[in-house]
This record gives sequence, C-alpha cells and structure tokens, in this order.
Amino acid sequence: MAKIALLGIGTVGGGVAELLCSNAAQIAAGAGEKLELKYIMCSRAHPDNPFADKIVYDFSVIENDEEISVVAECIGGVGAAYEYVKRALLAGKNVVSSNKELIAERGMELLAIAAQKNVRLLFEASVGGGIPIIRPLTQCLAANRVDEIYGILNGTTNYILTQMFQCEQSFDTALREAQRLGYAESDPTADIEGLDAGRKICILADICFGRNVPPEKIRIRGITGITAADAVLAGRLGFTVKLLGRAKRMENRLTVYVSPHMIGEDKLLSGISGVMNGICVKGNAVGECLFYGAGAGRLPTASAVVADLIDAVRHVSDGKDPRWVEGANDLLADSDELPCRWYVRAKAGAAALERVFGGTAVTENVYSAIITQEMPRSELEDLCAGLGVEAVWPVLE
Amino acid sequence: MAKIALLGIGTVGGGVAELLCSNAAQIAAGAGEKLELKYIMCSRAHPDNPFADKIVYDFSVIENDEEISVVAECIGGVGAAYEYVKRALLAGKNVVSSNKELIAERGMELLAIAAQKNVRLLFEASVGGGIPIIRPLTQCLAANRVDEIYGILNGTTNYILTQMFQCEQSFDTALREAQRLGYAESDPTADIEGLDAGRKICILADICFGRNVPPEKIRIRGITGITAADAVLAGRLGFTVKLLGRAKRMENRLTVYVSPHMIGEDKLLSGISGVMNGICVKGNAVGECLFYGAGAGRLPTASAVVADLIDAVRHVSDGKDPRWVEGANDLLADSDELPCRWYVRAKAGAAALERVFGGTAVTENVYSAIITQEMPRSELEDLCAGLGVEAVWPVLE
Repeated sequence: MAKIALLGIGTVGGGVAELLCSNAAQIAAGAGEKLELKYIMCSRAHPDNPFADKIVYDFSVIENDEEISVVAECIGGVGAAYEYVKRALLAGKNVVSSNKELIAERGMELLAIAAQKNVRLLFEASVGGGIPIIRPLTQCLAANRVDEIYGILNGTTNYILTQMFQCEQSFDTALREAQRLGYAESDPTADIEGLDAGRKICILADICFGRNVPPEKIRIRGITGITAADAVLAGRLGFTVKLLGRAKRMENRLTVYVSPHMIGEDKLLSGISGVMNGICVKGNAVGECLFYGAGAGRLPTASAVVADLIDAVRHVSDGKDPRWVEGANDLLADSDELPCRWYVRAKAGAAALERVFGGTAVTENVYSAIITQEMPRSELEDLCAGLGVEAVWPVLE
Repeated sequence: MAKIALLGIGTVGGGVAELLCSNAAQIAAGAGEKLELKYIMCSRAHPDNPFADKIVYDFSVIENDEEISVVAECIGGVGAAYEYVKRALLAGKNVVSSNKELIAERGMELLAIAAQKNVRLLFEASVGGGIPIIRPLTQCLAANRVDEIYGILNGTTNYILTQMFQCEQSFDTALREAQRLGYAESDPTADIEGLDAGRKICILADICFGRNVPPEKIRIRGITGITAADAVLAGRLGFTVKLLGRAKRMENRLTVYVSPHMIGEDKLLSGISGVMNGICVKGNAVGECLFYGAGAGRLPTASAVVADLIDAVRHVSDGKDPRWVEGANDLLADSDELPCRWYVRAKAGAAALERVFGGTAVTENVYSAIITQEMPRSELEDLCAGLGVEAVWPVLE
C-alpha cells in the first residue's frame, strides 16, 4: 500500500482522485501495490466533495508524514506549487506534476533537487495532457538524436482555429464558444497569445536537447492576428493554419518558437481538429513519429498523472528520467533567421504579390495571399514593404 | 561497458549494428555506459561486412560468454530464433527481439522463462517498427483499462492500398511495384493475406488484455479481394480502405481480428499513406490516442531494438514489462459477431442494393456499392443472398 498526497482538487486534481478510485485494480496491478489517496490539500473547504474527509489545509501535515511517498501537484502556476514541490522533494518524497508553467520555469532547479535527494520528479501530464510523449522521448527514442519536435500543443487555440477554418466562424465567435464550453478561460491570454504552447515547447526542447530553454527567451506569436479572410485564402492555397510550438536543431544551434504555421492538407497535423493535440518528433534513426490524443481535460490529464504515480511508486529512478542543464542561451538562434516559405496576406492585389514573390496569388474581397519562395523573415520583411501586408506565417515543410 | 551479441545481420540486424556505431554517444548517455557489439552471429560468412571481425557461427560462444549481458535477436521466424532466445534467457542473459512471429507464437512461454531467470525479454520493435507503442501501453497508459486497440500494422499492404486508392493502380501492379522497391517479399503471402498484421495485433492484444491470443485462433482476412472498382466506389461513398488489425473488449469477451476496413475520410488513419503505420488506442481515461511512424525499415526498426538494448543494459526488470497468461480462448468472440455497418460491393444494381439495405448506393461500370445499417455479419450474409456480392468489409466507426 503506497500512500499518496494530492495538491489541488480542481479539474486535474479532481480527475486524479476519481481515477484512483474508478481504475483502482488496474492501477494497483501496474504499481505492484494499492495506491491510497491519504490527503488532498486545498486552500478552502469542499464540503460536498466525495473526498472531503481527506482534505487538509497545511502542507506541513503532508511534508511531515513519513507514510507519504509521492505527492501529486495539480495546483498550477509557480507560486504555492513551486514552494510545495520544492519542500516535498527536500523532504525526500517523489513528486508528480501536471504543471507546465512550473516545469518550464523551474524544472531545471527542481530536477537537480530531486537528483540530489534521490527521488523522482515526473511530469508526463505537463505536455500534451494524456498523450504519452515524455517517456517515448526519453525511453523509446533514446537511440535517436532528435533533430526536431513540433506540434499542436494547445487545445484551446486548436479549437478556435478549427471553428474558424471548418465552420467559418469569426475569431471572436469561436473564442466565445470556446469559453462557453469551458475550453478557454475567462482571461484567454495565455492560450491565444501562445504562452501556454510556449511553456510546453520549452519543456520538450529541454528534454530533447538537454539544455534549459527559458520561455522568456523564445519568440512567441499567438493566433490573434488570424482572420476569417485567412481561413478562405489559406484553403484556396491548399493549406490550413495551426498554432505550432517548434524546436529544431540546426547544426550547433537550436531554434525554439511558437507561431501559427501553414500546414499542407496532405499532412496528418492538418487533420487534428478541435481540442485534440498532436506532437511530431523527427529522430535521426526513426524518422518521423506522431503522437496524437486529448491534450487537456479532466480524465485524459489524470491518466498521465496517475501513470507517473504508478512509476513513482514502483521504484526509484533508473537514471533515465529527463534532466537538463544551463547553457541553451548561447545556442538559441532567433526563429526568424530560419529560412522557410511564407504565407503573406496583403491589401496589395494579386498581381503585385506575384510580381514581388513569383508564383500564383489568390484573392478574397480586399485581400490577396501568396506562398513565397524560401527565405529568412528579415528578407521577407524587406520585400513586403509597401504591399500593405497584414499577416505572414511560415509554411511547415 | 556493456557487451552485446547480435543474432542476424540482415536488414534489421545490419541497422542495429550501424546505429550502435553512428549514434554511440547518444546511446551511451541513455544507457549510462557504452554499448559494445562483441559478436554477430550469422549462418554464413560476410567478408565485406564492416563488422566481419565480430562474426561467429556457433551460438554456444555467445551463450557461454559471461561478458555478454544482452542478446539482440534479429533473425526472424520461430526456428533458430526460438532456440537461441530460449537458450539465452536460460543462460541468464537479457534478450531483445524484433521478431513478431516469435513473440506472437512463443511470447508467453519465453516471458515466463525470463521472469523465472530474473532477466528481461523486450520486443518494442516487433510491432509498429520504430513507433513507440509497447512502453506507452505498459507505462504511460497504465492507469487505463484499454477497451480497444487497432491500427495499420503492415506497411507493405498499406503501400499497395495507397497505390490503388491514390494512384489508381491495379492490385497486381501495386504489388509488383512494392516488390521492386523492396517493400514486399518475392513471396508476399504473409503480408497480403494479413498474417503479419495478425501476429502484431495478437501481441498488442496479449499486452492490453493480459491473455495469450494465439494467431491461429483469430479471423484473418487480407487484401487480395480488393479491386480497382473498390477504390472508385469507396471514394464516392466518402471512405478509403485500410487493412486493420483490431482488438476490442466487449463486456467480458474479446474480439481480435484482421480485415480490410472502410475508414471515413475525416479519420486520421485515412491519411496514413505508403509504408507508414498508425496505431490507435482507446483507454477508459485517456480516450483516443494515436501513434504514427515508420512501421518497418532498417533504421526505424533498429531505433526500437536499440531502445530496448538501452533499457536492458540499464537495469533489471522493474516488474512492469508486459506479461500475459493462458486463458483467452474462452473469452474470444468471433469478430463476425461484432455488429457494425458494412460496405457491400455487388453486381446487383444500385436499386437492388438500396431496396435491401436502404440508403444510397453508388455505381461504377458493372458494380454497385452501399454502406449498410449496423448488423452482425451473419445477418448481412443472409441479406446478401442473390445479390452477386463480391466484397463486404466493416466500417470503422
């Protein structure tokens, strides 16, 4: 019998508590022993919660209880979550976290503490929700040098883009719909400005490249500049638009960024709709792999948290948990230097775009759009001068 | 320094030897020590092989060398491979295998020996080539009851179907093209009759359900009945055709089978082309996940074999390696009892099909086709009497 403490009883924490009950036999078989949820730490009372008898308000109860071998952090943010995770690790407890902000910003420090205390810090749920991605990277693809990893990492923005591109909704209507359905928060900034995807691609880059890539060091462009006109124009050019987090190795440099991308309709990522996520990995032996599934949601995310709990209960680290160290800053190249083809939407007519960029432009009402030749963004911006350009996004090759 | 013996130097074995050299630093970092390929066992001399100095012909050299901690079996089949794997396990060595036939037919017995000898038998490469699937199932999805797993498990047949459906080639032309490109063997029976996919879905069913599902107990239908007419008719009905291995839990029974399936064009599996594979898992917490990548080929398969080598070198079993026991026979339900919608191609005209099945039929030359209501196959066959039916396949919902 392994005794667990859960921090937070919101969407993810509630899902973890539920799953530990509903799939108890399955989980015990995986862990080799029963998992008992002993404490749930909250900041206020939840008298109607089925787990109300387990609620505590003081972290030191958990910290000082030697029976607790694993703490599952489902609070979010880097305030209290950071304090409790650090204290739990220092108290010699394994920690499981679904908190992408915490891992992206403080992962390096916390993993070092975990290593020093010989306990594990696992965070499968922090990227891609229920999608298995971190263990596949560190274990199944361990024989590969990962040259590139990118994906649809934020379900909220993918839902909005799907509504815009498949159902001809405006950005504002799609956002309100996402809020009504609980996919977007009342303040949607972190999602639509790409910050959430930025944290996740930083974690993936940390793992793949072994260097700490701080979210504030990467270029992040969100989806607020995408309009109904883009949905029509991109479709005519044979593309859809997806918000991608992307990390790419280029000789001795790394590029990590978030941006809307033009995705050809022949690519699997173009078919990933609604709140689903998809992550593509390019390894130098395996070639291209794709991992697809629910990137958020109560039970899918809980599925990943509980998988980590099972692993944490099973045994101490086999030395293969992800780790990363300082030193990416000197390696990071600005993503705008990456040569690629670009989608350009402008008020200049099709003829003007064709004259400047070659190829064939398409037109819808007052806008025309074209796919350029391959070039870095600085060169593109020089060419765009005077064309009334309102949107440029890279094409995913 | 861990010393490895490799059995077989064909496509996969050659890829393993190459990868151990080309990605040596990456692999050593994963394993925590260098991996040295000490022996390669072959049945004949390979004087021009870059690893010719490591070749041995007598397995007892490997069996009796206490320095060898892991044996990688890349021979294939259940003859010599079975003998050597068994002897290696009994000699207390960890074994890694890419051999789906061996694992599907003798996996239960060999895993029992491995458990008894406290060594590991790993076989990530036996299903889906380089695609991470076995660890994701046993580790990342360990909190889930897997209710269904299915996928495109054979690259040769997917290549042939892609050529037929996207390039309008005949079956015979597509098969010859696959043989010319090295995707199909000169005797293509195991691929086109579905036997290879059958072995793989049995391994996945073994893992997900914990019961041994012998390949000879499952219903297997291959792709030889698919014609150019089906490519046209299925397309008009909004479907493509893929050969799927499928294992489904139905209350207390299991269905495991291989058959061509109609796949709606809105499903990700419909976009998996050429020799690529894709495996879909439905877990009761995570919902639907998909794993996509190269299902065969020299380096992709070697990527999975070497990942297993790294794991085998790292540590002895943590108790989470897959295992399965006898007892599926009483649980196995005939897949033809599974109610589903069906694609029916017949010489009777569209009007006759519509009269019998309802809905709207499509016609191309002498054939018409329709999608039926949901029913078990026995009921379907009664309805088909007298219609000149030449093909029926289930629709994947």
